Amino acid sequence: MTPRISFEHQLEALNDNLVEMGQYVEKSIDQIFKALETMDIELAKEVMEGDDTVDDMEKGIEAQSLALITRQQPVARDLRMVSTALKVVTDMERIGDHAADIAEIIVRFEHADFYHLSKQVPKMIEATKKMVHDSLNAFIKRDVKAAGEIMKQDDIIDGLFDKIKTEIISLLQGGNQNADYCVDVLMIAKYLERIGDHAVNICEWTIFEEKGTIDNIRVL
Amino acid sequence: MTPRISFEHQLEALNDNLVEMGQYVEKSIDQIFKALETMDIELAKEVMEGDDTVDDMEKGIEAQSLALITRQQPVARDLRMVSTALKVVTDMERIGDHAADIAEIIVRFEHADFYHLSKQVPKMIEATKKMVHDSLNAFIKRDVKAAGEIMKQDDIIDGLFDKIKTEIISLLQGGNQNADYCVDVLMIAKYLERIGDHAVNICEWTIFEEKGTIDNIRVL
Repeated sequence: MTPRISFEHQLEALNDNLVEMGQYVEKSIDQIFKALETMDIELAKEVMEGDDTVDDMEKGIEAQSLALITRQQPVARDLRMVSTALKVVTDMERIGDHAADIAEIIVRFEHADFYHLSKQVPKMIEATKKMVHDSLNAFIKRDVKAAGEIMKQDDIIDGLFDKIKTEIISLLQGGNQNADYCVDVLMIAKYLERIGDHAVNICEWTIFEEKGTIDNIRVL
Repeated sequence: MTPRISFEHQLEALNDNLVEMGQYVEKSIDQIFKALETMDIELAKEVMEGDDTVDDMEKGIEAQSLALITRQQPVARDLRMVSTALKVVTDMERIGDHAADIAEIIVRFEHADFYHLSKQVPKMIEATKKMVHDSLNAFIKRDVKAAGEIMKQDDIIDGLFDKIKTEIISLLQGGNQNADYCVDVLMIAKYLERIGDHAVNICEWTIFEEKGTIDNIRVL
C-alpha cells in the first residue's frame, strides 16, 4: 500500500467515525425525546448510559485527528477535514451531553409529565429534533448551501425558549403546579436551546470544511 | 528573518492571544460575580457586551491556529501547542458565554437578591472563581502537576450545585419566595456547574499539551 492510499484510508476511517458519532448522537436525541413524551424511565437510563460511549467517541476522534495531523501533515482540503473533525466532535459531544442531562431529569421525576406542562414543549422538541437531524445531515453530506439555511432554524428554537420561560413563570406564580416540575421543564428548555446552538456550530464547521472560511473570512 | 524565527514569533503571538483571552475571561468572571453580589446592573451590562469580544478572540485564535498548522506544518510539541490552542479556546469561550448568561439574568431582575437567596450561592461562586483562576493559571504556566490537582476541585462545585438545588426546591415549595428569582438562582448555579466542567477541560488540555496524552493515552 502506498503512503497516499494509506493516508486516504485513514481519512476515510476518520470520516466513518464522525458519521457513526453523528448517528449515535442523533439516536440519543430521538430516544430522549421519545422518553420525555412517554416518561419512559428505561429509555432515559439507556441514554444516560450511552453518554460514556459518546465521550469515548469524542476522545477517539480527537486522538485520530491529532495523530493524522502529525504523521501525515495534510494540506488544503485534507487539513480542513481533519481540523473540522477536531472541532465538530465537541459540538456533537455537547448535544449528547444535554440529552443525558434531560435523561437525568426524567429518571429523577418519573411521575412528572414534563411534555404536557406547556404546549410549547412539544413544538420546541420538534424544532430541536429537526435542527439536529438537518445539521448532522448537512455535515455528513458536506452540503454547504443547506448548512447556511439550517442555521436560521435557531431563531425558531430561541423564540420557543422565550415563550416557555414566560409560560412556566406564570405557572409557578399561579401556584397550582408542582414547582419542581416547572423548574425542570425550564431546565429542559434551556438544554434544547443549547442543543440548537451546537447545531449552528455544526453548520459553521461544515461551511469551514468546504470553503476554508470562518464567518466569511478565509482561513485555510 | 529565517523561517524558524518567524515561526517562533507566530507561536509566541498565538500564545500571547491565548493568555490575553484567558485574562479577559477571568476578568468577566470576576466582574459578573461582583455584579451578582452587589446587583450592579451596569457591570452586568459590561459583561454582556464583552461577550462579543470573547467570541471574536475565539474566532481569531481558531483562524491563527489553523493557518499555522497549514503553512508551518508544525511537529511534536509545537503541533501540540497549536492543537491545544484550537481546542482550549472553546472552553474559554463557553466560560465567557456563561458569564454573559448570568449577566442577562441580573439585568432582567434588577431588584432581586440572588446572592443571598441561598447560603450556598456565595460558596459556589467562591469555588468557581478559584477553579477558573487556578485552571487558567495552570494553563498559562503549563503546570501539569497543578492541572492534575485543580481538576479535583470540580467535585466541590458539583456538591454545592446539588445542595443549592435541594434548597431552592424547598424554598419554591414553601411559597414564600419569588418563584422567578428561585428559578433564576437555579439557572445561575447550573451555569457555575458548567463553568467548572470547562475548567476541568482546560486542565486536561494543559496536560495534553505537555505530555501528548488524553486520559493517560498517548496521542502525539
